[in-house]
Amino acid sequence: MSSIARKSAAPVKRTAFDAEADIVVVGGGAGGLATALFSRWHGNSVVLLEKADELGGTTKKAAFWYWVPNNKHMQAIGIKDKKEDCLRYMARLSRPEAYDPKSPTLGMSQWEYDSYAAIYDNASPATELLADKGALEYRHCDFVPDYWAELPEDKAPKGRVLLPKDALPTMSDGGEVAIRTMGGKARADGIDIRTGHRVQRTIVNDAGAIIGVEADTGKGKTIAIKAKRAVVFATGGFTHDVSMRKNFLSVPVFGGCAARSNEGDFVNIGTAAGAELRNMNYAWMCPIVLEKALNDDPALIGTFSPSGDSMIYVDKTGRRVTNEKLAYNESAQAFFSWDPAKSEYPNLVLVAIWDERSQKHSASHEYGRFIVPKGVDDSHVIKGATLADLAKNIRSRVKKYASRIGNMAIAEDFEPTLKATIKRFNGFAKAGKDSDFHRGERQVELLFNGPAAEKPVAPNPTMYPISGKGPYYAALLTGGNLDTKGGPVTNPDGQVLDHVGKPIAGLYGVGNCVASASARAYWAGGATLGPILAFAYLAANAANREPRR
Amino acid sequence: MSSIARKSAAPVKRTAFDAEADIVVVGGGAGGLATALFSRWHGNSVVLLEKADELGGTTKKAAFWYWVPNNKHMQAIGIKDKKEDCLRYMARLSRPEAYDPKSPTLGMSQWEYDSYAAIYDNASPATELLADKGALEYRHCDFVPDYWAELPEDKAPKGRVLLPKDALPTMSDGGEVAIRTMGGKARADGIDIRTGHRVQRTIVNDAGAIIGVEADTGKGKTIAIKAKRAVVFATGGFTHDVSMRKNFLSVPVFGGCAARSNEGDFVNIGTAAGAELRNMNYAWMCPIVLEKALNDDPALIGTFSPSGDSMIYVDKTGRRVTNEKLAYNESAQAFFSWDPAKSEYPNLVLVAIWDERSQKHSASHEYGRFIVPKGVDDSHVIKGATLADLAKNIRSRVKKYASRIGNMAIAEDFEPTLKATIKRFNGFAKAGKDSDFHRGERQVELLFNGPAAEKPVAPNPTMYPISGKGPYYAALLTGGNLDTKGGPVTNPDGQVLDHVGKPIAGLYGVGNCVASASARAYWAGGATLGPILAFAYLAANAANREPRR
Repeated sequence: MSSIARKSAAPVKRTAFDAEADIVVVGGGAGGLATALFSRWHGNSVVLLEKADELGGTTKKAAFWYWVPNNKHMQAIGIKDKKEDCLRYMARLSRPEAYDPKSPTLGMSQWEYDSYAAIYDNASPATELLADKGALEYRHCDFVPDYWAELPEDKAPKGRVLLPKDALPTMSDGGEVAIRTMGGKARADGIDIRTGHRVQRTIVNDAGAIIGVEADTGKGKTIAIKAKRAVVFATGGFTHDVSMRKNFLSVPVFGGCAARSNEGDFVNIGTAAGAELRNMNYAWMCPIVLEKALNDDPALIGTFSPSGDSMIYVDKTGRRVTNEKLAYNESAQAFFSWDPAKSEYPNLVLVAIWDERSQKHSASHEYGRFIVPKGVDDSHVIKGATLADLAKNIRSRVKKYASRIGNMAIAEDFEPTLKATIKRFNGFAKAGKDSDFHRGERQVELLFNGPAAEKPVAPNPTMYPISGKGPYYAALLTGGNLDTKGGPVTNPDGQVLDHVGKPIAGLYGVGNCVASASARAYWAGGATLGPILAFAYLAANAANREPRR
Repeated sequence: MSSIARKSAAPVKRTAFDAEADIVVVGGGAGGLATALFSRWHGNSVVLLEKADELGGTTKKAAFWYWVPNNKHMQAIGIKDKKEDCLRYMARLSRPEAYDPKSPTLGMSQWEYDSYAAIYDNASPATELLADKGALEYRHCDFVPDYWAELPEDKAPKGRVLLPKDALPTMSDGGEVAIRTMGGKARADGIDIRTGHRVQRTIVNDAGAIIGVEADTGKGKTIAIKAKRAVVFATGGFTHDVSMRKNFLSVPVFGGCAARSNEGDFVNIGTAAGAELRNMNYAWMCPIVLEKALNDDPALIGTFSPSGDSMIYVDKTGRRVTNEKLAYNESAQAFFSWDPAKSEYPNLVLVAIWDERSQKHSASHEYGRFIVPKGVDDSHVIKGATLADLAKNIRSRVKKYASRIGNMAIAEDFEPTLKATIKRFNGFAKAGKDSDFHRGERQVELLFNGPAAEKPVAPNPTMYPISGKGPYYAALLTGGNLDTKGGPVTNPDGQVLDHVGKPIAGLYGVGNCVASASARAYWAGGATLGPILAFAYLAANAANREPRR
């Protein structure tokens, strides 16, 4: 959480300012930096205010794959990605219950449809401009599939993903690279970056236009910054505001891996300025290690890659209930199945269990893996020399947290059920086919399968029989957020809209702090950052057309 | 929908008014009428503004059971209902994932805990005052169980439910009775009732206090009404605002049985006045007839009582997936189980199927039953002389709506699967035990079982074998709302709070237009109206302590 407390978000009027710029950007992650850069390149003076003590936000923790439909390299190597196909794929996954391929808006609202079109049209130009200017050079990952590559609606299942050029071969540190290059370019190009500034509210003029912000510094000072053309918020979602999580999200997550400064500031500041909220119920989701969330561990990273072939998830009774290798956004949903007859979330916490083979060959400190090597904090790992031992230790670990997870308890007969579950899974592993949950049947599951023993292997690389001999290991998992998707609604130009759909003059928003039309979808790796760059580009272009106030 | 269009909710300043009163109440359902009456009895002058052309709102469509913990009659007949027990029951069901019986607030937030305590402490005094004054006399339904009577937390499983005294023996028309008696009393006691007035926004003074409202009349006139002490909103939830449903609710409902005027007006008006929103993700839920929702039928009533013993629900493949007799709030959840591996709601639409026995003996026009007698609109009923006929007709009916329900289609092998399903169900019916879903094992399921043939009967009165001979009948069902539970947050006194928890002077809210701390719970029949009367009582008492502005 920020060390600077939240105060009233009610807009104020004032005529004296401590500083001014054409464009004031709030937030120093990818969305804010890109908006600042695009604005600066239009010739605007720019101040960027970041609440944390350094730039980066959630971006810095991310792999920074970015999903760019019909990008330059797809065109160069002859991968066709037609607009109508791409929009169909986006719509199908965003609101499956409303998707209608024959409708002019594919069954989506006009706003949703226009948002998808804006992503398709602008992600590539935005990306190319950032690359041309040297702010964010990239490499093309033509081997990376979309997360729903097997859907008939996906006509370009590979090729849409880019990565910062100098990221590791394992592709996990793109966020650090991007923040380094974009931040460096921002400084070089004369953007006035001020960290440790928490924006509390907007400043409004008599005509109702937003003409600046008030920010508190760590030293207890409040400063006012005038924005002659526009204020652009890019402050991230509300993952770390417990009350907003509870009161808006469709499922009761315990936390997530967004930057700790993502406390939903723009939900309050935006609504206080008259904005309408949209898509508040959905989030970018991923499984997380329960204990890291409950212990408020700032190093928490989503479990993007559930490594381990001799590894399964079981519920409190010892049964498998899901395909462990589902892409993270989908896997996280499995924790929130609801039992209306018992009034409980039976899978709220699942137990990952693995053996020495996976511990030895699938451990890694990347992509939030719960199987970690020596030297990495493993306080979340439960151990047992035998399955009986392990079961006993799982039971006592769950008991420790019971009061915070709805009194969940490991079933009396967990151990024999677990044994039967392992026997069944081992049969699937030997046969190469998971008849219960179809593990390993999609491209994305292989992509995120993680490191594993080179031999011996079973026919399906995501499954190997769990050993009959210990030691064994376990970790408690639950569903969590990367970050949330709801906030004030904007049009595709990033203008924040009021309750009757009218832009609030001078007020813009970009990224996870504003509503995403993706609803429940996670189209592919980088489906966060690709669209964010497109909308940063559009917002900077639109703000550049504003009169100077 | 209201014939008067929504306009900007931004608060205005003004000094000239068309009328004034100590208290201005907005909304003429039970919450508004009760607040108006309690306020009037304190000696305040009261204006009540209702958007529709008549009083009643959702209340008028309701059975108006009201849940009053530790009520006078429970005390009189010796049913013990201790405060700590009752609060534990409320907490356990509201947020099962957070419930902790050992925590001082039972694992709930302080706001939630205080809300439950306020309900326990005030529902009975409110009820008694309304009865004593002759506005709402009641009879005690000591035979009606809570909806989770079997939970160990329910220490007073029967006795908390009251009903307007002159309601029918079948208890279905309490809402009409209550609106008649409360509305009559309001007029008799000098409350200035104005229907056909849509409040658009609040009026604010220089100190930031709410001092009135602006309302549009059907004749295109805008009038300003001054509230010397307080404005109390009681305008209902957002069931009929499609965009709010999509962007806030945790599940994609197609509609609900709230009054058509429940369009979320106070979500906009409240936030524009600086209110914080809470509990936006939850709703009072019930199954609804799909076609009535898609066709926007204002006569839609929730399926509170799924009558028929020789009746089952099956999914698009022909399989049973739920206990058909679950209490309505719980039954509705079954439609929204999510399949993360397919990215779809597999149960979004279920098909109720029954035979001639149920048609003959379980038809009724009450409680939203989908088995209706002759003379009642049965356009939602699909018929077939044989099961093959019925399956064919179900398939074509679903096809008709496919573009609006995510392209759902009846499976190729629906008919043989249905036959196997019926065979299995018939075995359960003969044995009196549903081994798959435990139908009929709870008190509430018997309460809502509805009319049925007196003989022959099977051992479990909720199940009877489905005939081997036609004719057969079917109806398409989905999950829906009674109304929503989210809105601006208030303290237990009904004062609307801003983002930093401070009351907005002069602004109050009661009922489904403000946040309910019940989250996902439906504690019992009347768990809507009992608490609403308690909060109307508290709000009127608090507003009476406001200075005259």
